[in-house]
Amino acid sequence: MTEPKRIVLDVDTGIDDTLALCYLLAAARAGECELAGVIGTYGNVLASTAVRNNRAVLELFGAAGVPVPRGCVCPSWADGFAVDEGCARFHGVNGLGNVDPARYMADAADAAGVVGVVGVAGAADGGADGVETVVGHMAELDRPAALSLGGERHDLAPATSGLACDASCANRPSEWRDEGVPEGVRLIVDEVRAHGRDVTILATGPLTDVDAAIKAAPDIAADMRLVIMGGSLTQEGNCYDLICETNIFQDPEAANRVFRAVGDVTMIGLDVTHQCLMTRADAAAWRATGTPRGAFLADMVGFYINANESSDPIFLAGSPLHDPLAVAVALDPGLVACFDVNMMVETATGNGHGFRGRTIGDPTRLRDPRKTAHVALNVDASRFTALFRDRLTDLCA
Amino acid sequence: MTEPKRIVLDVDTGIDDTLALCYLLAAARAGECELAGVIGTYGNVLASTAVRNNRAVLELFGAAGVPVPRGCVCPSWADGFAVDEGCARFHGVNGLGNVDPARYMADAADAAGVVGVVGVAGAADGGADGVETVVGHMAELDRPAALSLGGERHDLAPATSGLACDASCANRPSEWRDEGVPEGVRLIVDEVRAHGRDVTILATGPLTDVDAAIKAAPDIAADMRLVIMGGSLTQEGNCYDLICETNIFQDPEAANRVFRAVGDVTMIGLDVTHQCLMTRADAAAWRATGTPRGAFLADMVGFYINANESSDPIFLAGSPLHDPLAVAVALDPGLVACFDVNMMVETATGNGHGFRGRTIGDPTRLRDPRKTAHVALNVDASRFTALFRDRLTDLCA
Repeated sequence: MTEPKRIVLDVDTGIDDTLALCYLLAAARAGECELAGVIGTYGNVLASTAVRNNRAVLELFGAAGVPVPRGCVCPSWADGFAVDEGCARFHGVNGLGNVDPARYMADAADAAGVVGVVGVAGAADGGADGVETVVGHMAELDRPAALSLGGERHDLAPATSGLACDASCANRPSEWRDEGVPEGVRLIVDEVRAHGRDVTILATGPLTDVDAAIKAAPDIAADMRLVIMGGSLTQEGNCYDLICETNIFQDPEAANRVFRAVGDVTMIGLDVTHQCLMTRADAAAWRATGTPRGAFLADMVGFYINANESSDPIFLAGSPLHDPLAVAVALDPGLVACFDVNMMVETATGNGHGFRGRTIGDPTRLRDPRKTAHVALNVDASRFTALFRDRLTDLCA
Repeated sequence: MTEPKRIVLDVDTGIDDTLALCYLLAAARAGECELAGVIGTYGNVLASTAVRNNRAVLELFGAAGVPVPRGCVCPSWADGFAVDEGCARFHGVNGLGNVDPARYMADAADAAGVVGVVGVAGAADGGADGVETVVGHMAELDRPAALSLGGERHDLAPATSGLACDASCANRPSEWRDEGVPEGVRLIVDEVRAHGRDVTILATGPLTDVDAAIKAAPDIAADMRLVIMGGSLTQEGNCYDLICETNIFQDPEAANRVFRAVGDVTMIGLDVTHQCLMTRADAAAWRATGTPRGAFLADMVGFYINANESSDPIFLAGSPLHDPLAVAVALDPGLVACFDVNMMVETATGNGHGFRGRTIGDPTRLRDPRKTAHVALNVDASRFTALFRDRLTDLCA
């Protein structure tokens, strides 16, 4: 019996993020891993929403003791962040397919005879559950600032100047940069310093937290074992430009610094996640457990499958399991075959620059025999998807 | 002893194309291959210039008997073609680094006591050497037409309308589309029909001729064994956008059709050619043979090395051996490790389209277990570059 793998998960908790967290909980139950913490960051949702979702999912699945610190609320290049419409379309306004986990939690408490379930579907600012948040609205802005609207830069005049920001971002819920280093970023620093390569940092959202951790503690980069869901090397992207992948698009500068600094990055990109599809049969299997947990997963996943089917004909066969595959590979690297290459992210668009947000080989390190990135290009999709369905079924039962 | 491999080479003869042809001649001398023909196409130079260069190089290296048909003179999407300035900068105005092979040929004839050397550095229209060409100037244009200036589209008004075409293409030498199927395209059809997978079509320029051959004879696509120099999957491109590779950029539509139709394509792209560098020491070795052939190669290659050094700091270490690597792999596939994937080329730029000229995995065939393309991602660069230097040294001696 090998030691359980120590994992720090960093997620912008969305639907496939939630499935990834559940996969990890199933593995933890089987003694394969231990969760040092689940960091909530911005991306599919606001960071405070991610933290709230993480707490709710951990409670629903019986792991309320896991720490849920908040990471960065916006990209390294921005002052603030608001969610774009694409994310709401795929993940729902609350990140969980507009399904409220509290409802299933009450059912689960009834079923198990548990009392005193902590409220988790409370105020939108997340303040009620003790997470320090900086939620606000653009209307409150009293200085010029750069807002990231799902990765797209909007330069905002102060509201006090009398100039309104443009219609696409006016009055959206937004969060604004912390003064200090967020608790989630500190967790990454502390864990890598304490455990070196014996802890895996598993980042399935933007790489802003990992970048901020390296900025705060440059010594951790060489030692870090990092697995990411992000990027695309040999397939088209999933942003509307078909070049960029959404996690990397949120913060290309951070991702570029991470690729150049970290000594061991496994990249689980669209190259492989688009080969691993979840179907309505998976949802039916979870619902068939007859448990509140199974109903929660099935209801949430139904939203995701509908969204994917209507977005692209290639997803009529199923919806991509982006984040769950990254988790599975962190636990079992044998699921994929990787191409070892030194990677970078382009940070500008135009002649001589490439395309902002594109993940690509770094030409300055092409002939360097030491390769720091391992990009998964082939995956045993049938083994992974069977494992995925079975593990989540077990977790529901 | 295995059978010599039958090869049809299709080149836009440029400097590294010439080196590729020399590598093939060295292999032919060693009994490893036989050359069914060397097609000259547009790209680094006009098609008629490519034919002239092919004939001159074959004569200088003692292989005047090889057929040198002309292929297409312009991309499938255009009516005509002119060379852009970038090509002249890397390959010289004549494609051979502004070095005149006739001068060395006379020396070679003197040295070998050969008489009756055929003139090859004649009129710019190539007509004098019996090659049917359609060289013209834009000024002669009497109808609206699309001109490709090195892959960039220019819509031209007829000169008779009194509207001048823009300054960037006015009065450049150009060639205009054939009425029928060019002889070089017919050679591809005939060879694949006669020899199936026992002939390798080796295309180191734009894929217009291969596409035209498949259009003329769709039956040949499934059987075709094709090796190309072109594209880039995991590294930046070498067009100024850093996304596209120049051969593919010339005719994205043709390349896309070829990737989707041909049953067996080995892609030697910038992923591997940027790892295989030629240095001044190679040129010195050829010059040290003391022969006119060695002097020709060294002089021509000096131009290429100077151009690469001044274009990009990554080439201070050496100049990339694009076309020679493709030839070497056609003869010895063990030089590279390939990633099997179904490929496509994007043909439009913008939201929802990707980027015109980008080589990328085909999402509609990602999960198809049958893979038709084999993209070289790793190369034994030290074995290849040593082989390359030695073979060309032997050929000079």
